Amino acid sequence: MSAPEYRTALGASTPETITLLGSDLARDVMGSVGFGELAFWLAAQRRPTPGETRVFEAVLAALADHGFTPTAIVTRLTYLSAPDSVQGALAAGLLGGGSRFLGVTEDCGRFLHDVLAAADGLPTDDAGWDALALETVTARRAAGRFVPGLGHHVHKDGDPRTPRLFAIAAEEGVAGPHLALFAAIGRVHPQVLGRTLPLNGAGVCGAALADLGLPLELLRGFALLARTAGLIGQLAEELRHPVANDVFLSVDRNNRSVAPDPYVPDPLGG
Amino acid sequence: MSAPEYRTALGASTPETITLLGSDLARDVMGSVGFGELAFWLAAQRRPTPGETRVFEAVLAALADHGFTPTAIVTRLTYLSAPDSVQGALAAGLLGGGSRFLGVTEDCGRFLHDVLAAADGLPTDDAGWDALALETVTARRAAGRFVPGLGHHVHKDGDPRTPRLFAIAAEEGVAGPHLALFAAIGRVHPQVLGRTLPLNGAGVCGAALADLGLPLELLRGFALLARTAGLIGQLAEELRHPVANDVFLSVDRNNRSVAPDPYVPDPLGG
Amino acid sequence: MSAPEYRTALGASTPETITLLGSDLARDVMGSVGFGELAFWLAAQRRPTPGETRVFEAVLAALADHGFTPTAIVTRLTYLSAPDSVQGALAAGLLGGGSRFLGVTEDCGRFLHDVLAAADGLPTDDAGWDALALETVTARRAAGRFVPGLGHHVHKDGDPRTPRLFAIAAEEGVAGPHLALFAAIGRVHPQVLGRTLPLNGAGVCGAALADLGLPLELLRGFALLARTAGLIGQLAEELRHPVANDVFLSVDRNNRSVAPDPYVPDPLGG
Amino acid sequence: MSAPEYRTALGASTPETITLLGSDLARDVMGSVGFGELAFWLAAQRRPTPGETRVFEAVLAALADHGFTPTAIVTRLTYLSAPDSVQGALAAGLLGGGSRFLGVTEDCGRFLHDVLAAADGLPTDDAGWDALALETVTARRAAGRFVPGLGHHVHKDGDPRTPRLFAIAAEEGVAGPHLALFAAIGRVHPQVLGRTLPLNGAGVCGAALADLGLPLELLRGFALLARTAGLIGQLAEELRHPVANDVFLSVDRNNRSVAPDPYVPDPLGG
Repeated sequence: MSAPEYRTALGASTPETITLLGSDLARDVMGSVGFGELAFWLAAQRRPTPGETRVFEAVLAALADHGFTPTAIVTRLTYLSAPDSVQGALAAGLLGGGSRFLGVTEDCGRFLHDVLAAADGLPTDDAGWDALALETVTARRAAGRFVPGLGHHVHKDGDPRTPRLFAIAAEEGVAGPHLALFAAIGRVHPQVLGRTLPLNGAGVCGAALADLGLPLELLRGFALLARTAGLIGQLAEELRHPVANDVFLSVDRNNRSVAPDPYVPDPLGG
Repeated sequence: MSAPEYRTALGASTPETITLLGSDLARDVMGSVGFGELAFWLAAQRRPTPGETRVFEAVLAALADHGFTPTAIVTRLTYLSAPDSVQGALAAGLLGGGSRFLGVTEDCGRFLHDVLAAADGLPTDDAGWDALALETVTARRAAGRFVPGLGHHVHKDGDPRTPRLFAIAAEEGVAGPHLALFAAIGRVHPQVLGRTLPLNGAGVCGAALADLGLPLELLRGFALLARTAGLIGQLAEELRHPVANDVFLSVDRNNRSVAPDPYVPDPLGG
Repeated sequence: MSAPEYRTALGASTPETITLLGSDLARDVMGSVGFGELAFWLAAQRRPTPGETRVFEAVLAALADHGFTPTAIVTRLTYLSAPDSVQGALAAGLLGGGSRFLGVTEDCGRFLHDVLAAADGLPTDDAGWDALALETVTARRAAGRFVPGLGHHVHKDGDPRTPRLFAIAAEEGVAGPHLALFAAIGRVHPQVLGRTLPLNGAGVCGAALADLGLPLELLRGFALLARTAGLIGQLAEELRHPVANDVFLSVDRNNRSVAPDPYVPDPLGG
Repeated sequence: MSAPEYRTALGASTPETITLLGSDLARDVMGSVGFGELAFWLAAQRRPTPGETRVFEAVLAALADHGFTPTAIVTRLTYLSAPDSVQGALAAGLLGGGSRFLGVTEDCGRFLHDVLAAADGLPTDDAGWDALALETVTARRAAGRFVPGLGHHVHKDGDPRTPRLFAIAAEEGVAGPHLALFAAIGRVHPQVLGRTLPLNGAGVCGAALADLGLPLELLRGFALLARTAGLIGQLAEELRHPVANDVFLSVDRNNRSVAPDPYVPDPLGG
């Protein structure tokens, strides 16, 4: 059986040239295209404007490192255990980039997108956005579900990244409907929930990425890209000022051995 | 027992502020620091100059994507199998970033560094560099070992990334001893090996990263960072123009079932 | 701040002894407890009976290897790329153990469990099981959803693992309500769906694991344990009769370079 | 271009049958072959004897779980972060199975093998083994290198797994030259090193696996297989008695923010 053809617009080589996204890599990409710009281009197969790039890189900066998160601890512990494999330490850290600690960005971007896609036309003024946001938060509450992007366990009175990203997007003229809806949610939710929660940084990043027209299925991917840079920073610090062995010993020495607790499944036929 | 303290200069938060590397994240990093610049800063704990950033981003561009490499295929196949986990697909791809396909960058940087660290002072002109390179290649050959960064299976008459990166580093005034030695190896090796091999792109990237003063233990890490952007591009393309299922079927349909071949260990007491 | 205590019933050591699940590892586990039995014990914190062990090991055998699956190809390609890291090659393969290729076992076990937990008492004869199954398949169809465990793309007239696992569970007296419901689904679904589909092997394994009283959240974990043994087999074969480079070249050589196709997001305000 | 053929002796299917290693999976493997036995068979492509299986499973038991190791902590933290992906949590834990915490088994097996392969015939009595061991330990010490498998940070006066595994291998008649050399190293090393160190459990496992005739390149793989069962146990316990969030908070709350410490490369031309 003949093999199928595998089409791609990404990297390609001949003996003389290397092409990336249809451009000559050496001549037209290296030295001319920043790394954030390139990452956007690779994902969207279109080159972003300088304004789009600035917003995108602001998002990556916002998500790159948050100190001793589980992912950072995991990368350091894995490197302690297997120092021969930097790729394993980074991969292990990224595997924590799931629903709880890095997923808010994706969840928020998708949530806003779903609301907007289902709306009967888009609002044209703040009052219209507030009405859509009110309807959205009310429906969410009635369904007993959280509003993605709302609330933060540390920055209870406001996440400093949020106004900054709104401002950068506005400066660059790339604030779109996802950010508009997210801002409106920030204005109206106290009427419904009875208390004021901050719009968090992970959420506003999701809104901004969606406004940049990036694929919703990969919003988590951009958070992971940002985090890769952060995890390299964690490894670089671990190499010179190690903490992983202390973390390990702190757990190991405080272990308390108990008797097995046999698992009992839930009852059936309830 | 009281827990130890864990020191870090990376991310830190109070309810009001987020600090990254001692800077205010929202005010002084977001919107002002590009992603390549930030990745450098996180790894070296010092902010690079614009010239250093340009060289660093040129390296990342050179390494981001090379088409259907094993790592790209792995990310696409893993996404086919487990579309619920973008982090798993990216991590799986990065795990191929080992000694053979992404390791040349690190190997070359370390190799050049070891030669330079052992040299009795550094050369001050091209003749001096050529002499050191000649000695190095000769010793390597006598030991029956390859010279890292020399040779390419496709770009046999020259890797287009190599002269471009030399030029960018020279333009920015950040070409240092690693690049100088690497260039000299390119000039003198035919005298020793009897044929002319290209200086490859992965190798020149390792030399440039070492000249930028980045930690040698993490040169592979920067190749992995570049590749993360490339793998997101691969996933983005797979989402719209999938090939993974065809790759899988092409292997599965061409399988030939054979009888087991019992493993026989090497003889002992030889 | 003092560190918290971390309780565990798993491994513990003193200078003289090693304990596992409250047993003396050297004296009472090594040499006495088979590996399947131990894996069950570790997960359930109770030692299985010989009959339970036999069923559990039959499940592991059923799921260990299915030839050139995406996970097997991924492990081989990752080893090709990074032969220095066996752990990376195995981890990469396991990362494909998600919703599509290894997830049916978990999905089927959970699905059966949910039906049984919601039932108003459990049936006591075949007619009762058939009635419950009919109701279940009908409801599922009305909701436009598949019945997990039903259908197979190769074994269209019956998966040979399915009757075998039913028989082993019956022989050992550990066939319970999950297997009973699954069998009934096999009997009644043609009345609802209008055609006869096989009960697949992954599904019957999920039913059997649930009947063994193992945690539903980890059914996928047992499939991954089985697959780890299979992937070691794949690596062992790759070491002596490599195919990964041919797979890579087959893709690389059949690539077709196309122009970039800029991503366009879904329309909003629809 | 036509696709190449991919040969395999592992899993294969037709619509009616499933074959594994040339055997009928449903009829001849499921219900008849234990999981440890199957793992051996997959790796060696020959079915082990009952004695070989017992030693192999004793090794797996010895390596399955050691309490709160870095790998166990990593799996728990990753699950905390990404509870949607059991495969990610297991893979992350396995990625710590590198040179430091799980690598001793492989290092020791390879080391013993290299000594035996280079020996001029194999000893035939204890005196001969002692002489070879003495020469080996002396040479290793002269080279300033450790002897793999010697020493343990907890079990300073003897690792209880070691005599037990020697005894099981002797009972089953499968103790071979690797175990013989390892035992002799245990007897003679005090003469060379001036103090008595224990033969550790990881080391004796490597010797036993090598005597079983398993591929040396995959000894680490068997440690990883054992550990997969242990990590599933860790996850099962985490689900019911979680500790990962306390580990995370214990690190996060004891962080101490310091100023950046710019990286300075090693001097060159030394």
